[in-house]
Amino acid sequence: MRISPPNPELLALHTGTVGKTWDLRQIIDGCARHRFRGISPGRDRLKQMGVKEAAKAIRGNGLTPTGLYGAGMFPAQDRKARELAIDEARRAIEEAATLEAECLALTVGGLPEDSKDLPGAREMVRDGLGRTLDHARSAGVRLAIEPMHPMHCAAQSCINTLAQALDLCDELDRGGRALGVAVDVYHVWWDPQLKAQIERAGEKRLLAFQISDWLLAPGTMLADRGMMGDGAIDLPLIRSWMEEAGYRGFHEAEILSAASWWQRDPDEVLATCRVRHQTAC
Amino acid sequence: MRISPPNPELLALHTGTVGKTWDLRQIIDGCARHRFRGISPGRDRLKQMGVKEAAKAIRGNGLTPTGLYGAGMFPAQDRKARELAIDEARRAIEEAATLEAECLALTVGGLPEDSKDLPGAREMVRDGLGRTLDHARSAGVRLAIEPMHPMHCAAQSCINTLAQALDLCDELDRGGRALGVAVDVYHVWWDPQLKAQIERAGEKRLLAFQISDWLLAPGTMLADRGMMGDGAIDLPLIRSWMEEAGYRGFHEAEILSAASWWQRDPDEVLATCRVRHQTAC
Repeated sequence: MRISPPNPELLALHTGTVGKTWDLRQIIDGCARHRFRGISPGRDRLKQMGVKEAAKAIRGNGLTPTGLYGAGMFPAQDRKARELAIDEARRAIEEAATLEAECLALTVGGLPEDSKDLPGAREMVRDGLGRTLDHARSAGVRLAIEPMHPMHCAAQSCINTLAQALDLCDELDRGGRALGVAVDVYHVWWDPQLKAQIERAGEKRLLAFQISDWLLAPGTMLADRGMMGDGAIDLPLIRSWMEEAGYRGFHEAEILSAASWWQRDPDEVLATCRVRHQTAC
Repeated sequence: MRISPPNPELLALHTGTVGKTWDLRQIIDGCARHRFRGISPGRDRLKQMGVKEAAKAIRGNGLTPTGLYGAGMFPAQDRKARELAIDEARRAIEEAATLEAECLALTVGGLPEDSKDLPGAREMVRDGLGRTLDHARSAGVRLAIEPMHPMHCAAQSCINTLAQALDLCDELDRGGRALGVAVDVYHVWWDPQLKAQIERAGEKRLLAFQISDWLLAPGTMLADRGMMGDGAIDLPLIRSWMEEAGYRGFHEAEILSAASWWQRDPDEVLATCRVRHQTAC
């Protein structure tokens, strides 16, 4: 099956794709220069600039804030730390509201320190999401659970498949639209249930779509992603599943790459994303 | 729930736990010295010694050959390479028969070179297994599919969950006992369906059980496993699920650890396995 190239207007940039060379203002300018139409900032970058200022600069450059990143991490050994994570998630919801971001994407957290209790950690995630959701509803911000690759289960996210994330959506937000999922191909491309679960999610739950590639011999588990087209993932096929399920949103390039792309001139990185979006996605 | 320590007679050694310091004969002697009761050799080590000679030494030291490793890798771009993998698997079946190994564990293979066709690779695995199975039945050797961690999907194995492996067992060996699974905690510990799928497998399909641990900050994806007790995996819980499902076989320590355990004196490694089997499994 030959799949036609994606709409170039749908390319967005996850700020994690750019190393530390540029600050958020420079990234916003770069996005405009390279005709990206969306941007999803990390909260750390947002802080540098101030949320209101960032919101203005993003909209002023014709960019849609597709998502905000950098909250979650709900499981912790003691109750106080769990409360702090929930407070932090509520602050992130306020920021997402100011930004008018299309969603707040959550990295839900892995095992608490020294814990081996995976079912317990998953309970804590459910609890944390549940206690954040009303706040999100009031603020008019949609929360996206981002299932992360099983190799991140211990340290970053104990929600590792779309099926798990969608079960949580069904349980905590039955019939609602406040909770959904962020589909990052890097995390889910291997899943034999991927097509079926994207279909299950449907337009209602598909809040974000992130693109990069899986290199054949990644050196490390962290920040060693490939540029679209340089790896093993059939990006056009997964995009076609998203579209068939009703997703009409942006395609966020999220290429965390400490050894390679973070070392290059960000203008080269963005230009390459733009080309590869048309030739490999 | 407090789970009592495992039967010490069930400790076995996967030869991959020992670096290159010892050859197979030394490993066999080491196993006997440290009162391991089982051994699962890799085919590369077996070749050094000769299969018949190895079989004699293993039995002569009171060891059960729990499994043989080092065949599979069915997907390939051209038909000839696929035929070669099947021929190789048949040779491995002969070796497993000579060894009287309890199973031949298969690493089924990932994506063919330059391919992004994951469903296609999974078809090739099904085809390869199907064409190997009659040979295994005639030789009286049971084949174990080893689902591997999703991070190995591209390079080593596109069968990444117990559910997938058991679907293949049902399809290719309905009602039979020729095909089953090897449960390596390192590969499957994160799986939210793990308990249910071990139960589904039952005594009939559970052919091997491998133990190690998931370190909280593994440096690389390859050979960076932890000693039992040093990581995030609730080993007693998973063992209890295996036992509830009817598994009565060995617990093979398989600690692939290039930077740490392979660098140590193998006698220290085996002694540590023996202690940790009682205190952390």
